[in-house]
Amino acid sequence: MKRLVLFLLVAGSAFACAPGAAHDSLMPVLVGLLVILAAAKLGGELALRVGQPAVLGELVVGIAIGGLIHLGVPLPDIAHAPIFEVLASLGVVVLLFEVGLESTVSELLSIGGRATLVATIGVIGAVAGGIGLGMAMLPGHSFVLGLFIGGAVCGTSVGITARVLRDLKQSTTRAAKLILGAAVVDDVLALVVLSLVTGIAIGMAGGHAFDWRLPVRSGLLAIAFLSSALILGPRVSRWIFRISKRMRSPDLLLPIALAFAFGVAAIAGYVQLAPIVGAFAAGLTLDRAEYRTLIDRGEHELEDLIHPVGQVLTPIFFVVMGARVELWRLGHPTVWLLTGALVAVTVVSRLVLGLAAPSGTSKLTVALGMIPRGEVTLIFADVGRRLLVHGTPFLSEDEFSAIVFVVAVTSLMTPPLLRWQLRRVGGA
Amino acid sequence: MKRLVLFLLVAGSAFACAPGAAHDSLMPVLVGLLVILAAAKLGGELALRVGQPAVLGELVVGIAIGGLIHLGVPLPDIAHAPIFEVLASLGVVVLLFEVGLESTVSELLSIGGRATLVATIGVIGAVAGGIGLGMAMLPGHSFVLGLFIGGAVCGTSVGITARVLRDLKQSTTRAAKLILGAAVVDDVLALVVLSLVTGIAIGMAGGHAFDWRLPVRSGLLAIAFLSSALILGPRVSRWIFRISKRMRSPDLLLPIALAFAFGVAAIAGYVQLAPIVGAFAAGLTLDRAEYRTLIDRGEHELEDLIHPVGQVLTPIFFVVMGARVELWRLGHPTVWLLTGALVAVTVVSRLVLGLAAPSGTSKLTVALGMIPRGEVTLIFADVGRRLLVHGTPFLSEDEFSAIVFVVAVTSLMTPPLLRWQLRRVGGA
Repeated sequence: MKRLVLFLLVAGSAFACAPGAAHDSLMPVLVGLLVILAAAKLGGELALRVGQPAVLGELVVGIAIGGLIHLGVPLPDIAHAPIFEVLASLGVVVLLFEVGLESTVSELLSIGGRATLVATIGVIGAVAGGIGLGMAMLPGHSFVLGLFIGGAVCGTSVGITARVLRDLKQSTTRAAKLILGAAVVDDVLALVVLSLVTGIAIGMAGGHAFDWRLPVRSGLLAIAFLSSALILGPRVSRWIFRISKRMRSPDLLLPIALAFAFGVAAIAGYVQLAPIVGAFAAGLTLDRAEYRTLIDRGEHELEDLIHPVGQVLTPIFFVVMGARVELWRLGHPTVWLLTGALVAVTVVSRLVLGLAAPSGTSKLTVALGMIPRGEVTLIFADVGRRLLVHGTPFLSEDEFSAIVFVVAVTSLMTPPLLRWQLRRVGGA
Repeated sequence: MKRLVLFLLVAGSAFACAPGAAHDSLMPVLVGLLVILAAAKLGGELALRVGQPAVLGELVVGIAIGGLIHLGVPLPDIAHAPIFEVLASLGVVVLLFEVGLESTVSELLSIGGRATLVATIGVIGAVAGGIGLGMAMLPGHSFVLGLFIGGAVCGTSVGITARVLRDLKQSTTRAAKLILGAAVVDDVLALVVLSLVTGIAIGMAGGHAFDWRLPVRSGLLAIAFLSSALILGPRVSRWIFRISKRMRSPDLLLPIALAFAFGVAAIAGYVQLAPIVGAFAAGLTLDRAEYRTLIDRGEHELEDLIHPVGQVLTPIFFVVMGARVELWRLGHPTVWLLTGALVAVTVVSRLVLGLAAPSGTSKLTVALGMIPRGEVTLIFADVGRRLLVHGTPFLSEDEFSAIVFVVAVTSLMTPPLLRWQLRRVGGA
């Protein structure tokens, strides 16, 4: 113990007297990663002890870290530093790739029609709710603004649901596949809504006619991407692994698989879809039969290789998401009223879409699993704040904050609700 | 094949027509990682085919990518983008942590005296050579400038040697331990030289007396860090794992071990040592006996967990190092003359220090293993370029480039030489 104190003194004095000029860019990253990994494990442990999924604990410690940074505690700013934004995004890309690996294209296509129905109902519900909210609550009874905030809450972020399902070892159930499939579809639909509303707003601002070709092009591009990924992805990966079989280097499987995932995720991003949709598609299209030769040669199974990478990267996403929640903004009544209304729109539209789940699948599981709002919602918030109509931002600061809070509230409410439901029905 | 063409067309048109506004910061990272991972594996394969270590291939493809970027090929700028700098640094931190895990503190201390002797001889040789060079070649026959460039080439970067030793499964030999130990010591000595020369240069610039306390403080701080790390590190890690035993969460070992490594690396950085020295010390102090309970509980061995993380991160370091080499600067005769002279100083001082290796250890292996210059050299280059003496940078643009080239040349020459030597003596 005396030596520990001595060590802390030496370490502390080192921190205090040497400003570390030589390794400027790396120091805050190392400290930030240390804080994130330690906090994630402690938060996860506390959540487990009170019977909640670990991911909830990671989000909550993230909120705490964000609060400490706001109060001036000298920690690396994990909520806003670009490096942590990138590492967090890589974390959720790897997570969705892992989840994709657990399914196959044919499994997903077998529920494709139903997933499309479920997603469409959810999007119509959210947009209708948003328009209603806009007419009832927002200044000027704005139809367009309502359409925008409805669109903002129509894309589902499967990161949190995927994590809860994995933690409870239920990511291969029919309900899980329906949720994942529907989340891909509603991402595409959200994209169409975004280009639609942005087009209308730009038309309003410029005084010229609205160009219908914009949303049509986005939609077609997204559909082209998804069909190419699902039809041609397996061929491309087979071709890559055919080359790899002739290579003599050790340790080929993980780098090749990850490069493939990053590539497909990047293409998804270029067609304005969430990169995680691409990562999920990449995981779906990789088939163990193609890389079996590499495993026969002595490499570990891909799941065993990717899991440690995910263990390190995935918590970064959840802690950083938590750290971005700016609790103190809830002081404004408009913010929490609008947040509450949007959460209500989300939950009600989910309960309605759940009704379209096929018999044999728990409707409530599907509804709860599709509650979390995520990157698509944050993209709407970001686009809306930067879009100027007659010199004023399309979204006010309060409207912007409310949309961000919807992400936080839905992210926090899903893990306990979903866990409760899955325990109740035994994962039907 | 027709479908592959179709896929490439779809993917290509997606790249061309959608600028990807929504995921700006992530896209270049995904594409860059795809390029790095694919290039590293192809370069490594080509190197293996011509009988060279994979790391040489990774450096060479890195140089090629750097050239392509310079020629205007639209690739993410992996040589200069901060995110790749950070990922590369994390890669070499993880590599040195892995190498540290393969040894123990007592093994290192048993060769500590000899390692200090070897390192001291190497540093004296490099500094004497640098001063000689300065008096003979540099404008104004500068003693101080010579001291500076001698200091620049006195710190050894063990990243490349560690990688070659690992690839040939010889990272636990006596020669390997001597190299690693001596590299830690000469890093400390290089630090003392840096604060010495910087102090003299600042004194020259300001016209006031040189402050001897600066280099003394740096040296003491570094020694305090190393002794605390080696003496108290094991106690701290034991204490952390004692807590982890009481935790119920799965997947604790890797996040805890990495958080520990990042923490010790950060402390090393704060005392102005290279963070990789800290990562190596962290690996040394972690002992399997401490975390055996976690493995008994079903977690994989730490080596199996960290290896996949290293597989992804480590090649980033080598490809990025290669991409930073600006070959076209070799057009200036001063640059390549000075580069050649500094490489000669490095190699001769290594051959001299090799003589101090104990009998039973191959003197030539130790000499060759200590050739690579790395981050310490780059730090000198960076400090020298930014340090103004009477309004002029202490290092000219050509002197700066030459120092950077020394890193490239020594990095490229070491893998084939070391491999040749290790094959010849069978790893004595």
